[in-house]
Amino acid sequence: MDNRVLEALNEIKRGVAEIIDFEAIEKLIKRYFETGENFYVKAGFDPTAPDIHLGHTVLIQKLALFQKFGGIVQFLIGDFTATIGDPTGKSETRKVLSREQVLNNAETYKQQVFKILDENKTQVVFNSSWLNELGTAGLIALASNLTVARMLERDDFSKRYSSNTPIAVSEFLYPLLQGYDSIALNSDVELGGTDQKFNLLMGRTLQKAYNSKKQQAVLMMPILEGLDGVQKMSKSLGNYIGVTDEPFDMFGKILSISDELMWRYFELLSSKSLKEIEELKINVENGSKHPKKVKEELAMEIVDRFHGAGFGEKAKDEFEKVFAKKDIPTEIEEFHFEKEIWICQALVDSKLVDSTSQARRDIKANAVSINQEKISDDKLILEKGEYILQKGKKSFAKIIIK
Amino acid sequence: MDNRVLEALNEIKRGVAEIIDFEAIEKLIKRYFETGENFYVKAGFDPTAPDIHLGHTVLIQKLALFQKFGGIVQFLIGDFTATIGDPTGKSETRKVLSREQVLNNAETYKQQVFKILDENKTQVVFNSSWLNELGTAGLIALASNLTVARMLERDDFSKRYSSNTPIAVSEFLYPLLQGYDSIALNSDVELGGTDQKFNLLMGRTLQKAYNSKKQQAVLMMPILEGLDGVQKMSKSLGNYIGVTDEPFDMFGKILSISDELMWRYFELLSSKSLKEIEELKINVENGSKHPKKVKEELAMEIVDRFHGAGFGEKAKDEFEKVFAKKDIPTEIEEFHFEKEIWICQALVDSKLVDSTSQARRDIKANAVSINQEKISDDKLILEKGEYILQKGKKSFAKIIIK
Repeated sequence: MDNRVLEALNEIKRGVAEIIDFEAIEKLIKRYFETGENFYVKAGFDPTAPDIHLGHTVLIQKLALFQKFGGIVQFLIGDFTATIGDPTGKSETRKVLSREQVLNNAETYKQQVFKILDENKTQVVFNSSWLNELGTAGLIALASNLTVARMLERDDFSKRYSSNTPIAVSEFLYPLLQGYDSIALNSDVELGGTDQKFNLLMGRTLQKAYNSKKQQAVLMMPILEGLDGVQKMSKSLGNYIGVTDEPFDMFGKILSISDELMWRYFELLSSKSLKEIEELKINVENGSKHPKKVKEELAMEIVDRFHGAGFGEKAKDEFEKVFAKKDIPTEIEEFHFEKEIWICQALVDSKLVDSTSQARRDIKANAVSINQEKISDDKLILEKGEYILQKGKKSFAKIIIK
Repeated sequence: MDNRVLEALNEIKRGVAEIIDFEAIEKLIKRYFETGENFYVKAGFDPTAPDIHLGHTVLIQKLALFQKFGGIVQFLIGDFTATIGDPTGKSETRKVLSREQVLNNAETYKQQVFKILDENKTQVVFNSSWLNELGTAGLIALASNLTVARMLERDDFSKRYSSNTPIAVSEFLYPLLQGYDSIALNSDVELGGTDQKFNLLMGRTLQKAYNSKKQQAVLMMPILEGLDGVQKMSKSLGNYIGVTDEPFDMFGKILSISDELMWRYFELLSSKSLKEIEELKINVENGSKHPKKVKEELAMEIVDRFHGAGFGEKAKDEFEKVFAKKDIPTEIEEFHFEKEIWICQALVDSKLVDSTSQARRDIKANAVSINQEKISDDKLILEKGEYILQKGKKSFAKIIIK
């Protein structure tokens, strides 16, 4: 086989959790190198949450990789279900969005993803355009292609059914709609998380049922662990790195991860080749390179990706200036507050002092700094923002106020 | 309570298998007698099979009864599903109908049912008009009102699921659509067969879910036994009396039923009051009236209903002329053939002779009649139609050729 094809396939396989019908992907890429013919790679995104973090970019980078080898990305914004919301009223995550909100969110998405994806090889599509048209009769016909027993095989349905947790009949329809998207888009490949396996295969099943000429291959990416290295990266868990995070924060967050997690991030997030990463590993193992230096390389690469070339270097300099030179530890415990807070209360809540009266005394004694500046006003109210509080030389806390 | 109301309720209850929320029906009828305010009584009919037999009329007569007490009948032609057909392609009974066929069938229905129903108190409605409008989003919202577990409680689903017989997801949607019909029509009462209980209650459940001011009462009629007195009356079983049957056939078929079945037909089909029927029973029991005479009364009443006053009497006369006076038994075994048949073969197949050569000899010997006429041609081919074959004086067979 053509060396370019082999290399492409190796890159495609990198970090992947599971591929269904790898042969189909092989054929598509081979054909592209031979004839220049493009193919279509679908991925669906939730229009209610347009704040992308690195967990999402694992998949988006894989999409970008496909673009290098002939893939046209079908960036599907699942606005149809968002305009319905959750008819059972039980799920708070399924908010009803107006048409305007959907379009606004789509714009936000675009700003973020086009830092990774090639805009000229991306089609941003909305499934409301064909799902509304489907209609009552079309949806019934669609639902005739799958049995109740097959639906109940889906892991979460199976668990809920056997534990008598209600499943609304409507919930059986969502995977069918996702599958129908693949028919409407005539997709060759669909990408998703491993938690989406059932729904991803639905597209393949339905394309067959609808006598589509294609049956999409499915490529599943693993779920990226958050900063803690244990739980899935998620905004609600607070263990995430947002793609719109400031360079300084982004750099600092990556530097805070464990050495073990660093290699995972390299595999799933870095643009370095597997060979380069292997060399870094060897250098760390034989002691010729300090893991912190390697982590800085990763951090700079990621900052550059989302903020532009050179921003990684600048973030590193700034970080060193603020922390390393002023003896501020790189890992500072964070405390989150929902609203403005009195400085003395903040000092108590962040465990720097035991009482507000102690806090008052320390401020008067010139022992308290905010962002490296000593303060003297013990009536200060901290407004929305992020602050590094310091008491004495060695006690630090990061205060984040919404 | 007003005597008229009491009498009305007694008539309503007559022959009924089950009523859900009888109090609601009581209120509606009471209100009608007090204020003249009407209410709405829904019943659904399958547009694929517009040939009504007496089995159907049990329900239609109950609808007609409601019309006497303020009910406006919503004669619902379920054309929506007929225009889809059976998307699984498994059910032969779910034929796809064109708009034209649906309208033609509706006309046929009307001709038949307005012999029982008061046209001025009947709204003929088609559910395609609101179900198409429901759309993808509307259907999903509808399906959010019921759980999978609840659906699987339906008797046939439960059996099929536990025996691993496939149930298409679409099949879960049909009961929901039937329920939605009640929302669209704002029905006060729905009538149906006992086999429809789950679907009938669906209307009640969904009206509540959609915050309708009404929650329909449900009245279920028993399934009428066919001429054999055992199986459900059905066209495919051949044990039926069609409302378009000729007076002579209708009369003869009713005369052929057992004495026991006769009382069942009186209860479910006759317009005689329960008191009158009780008197007839006593007269038969004490021997002052022959059961055959009573059966003739029933037969005449039914013939009059579908053919006009006096036709029952005429059918009775004709019947006596043909059968009684010519010593033809009233019960003749029937033999059905799919296509034209040679007379000698027909004589063998209907067990009047043992062989075709015997048949030839009997015809030559002037011992065979068709419809009371002697025949001499042993090469005769019987075409489509009904014939009474007679061999000698006492052997009869009825031949029905499609």
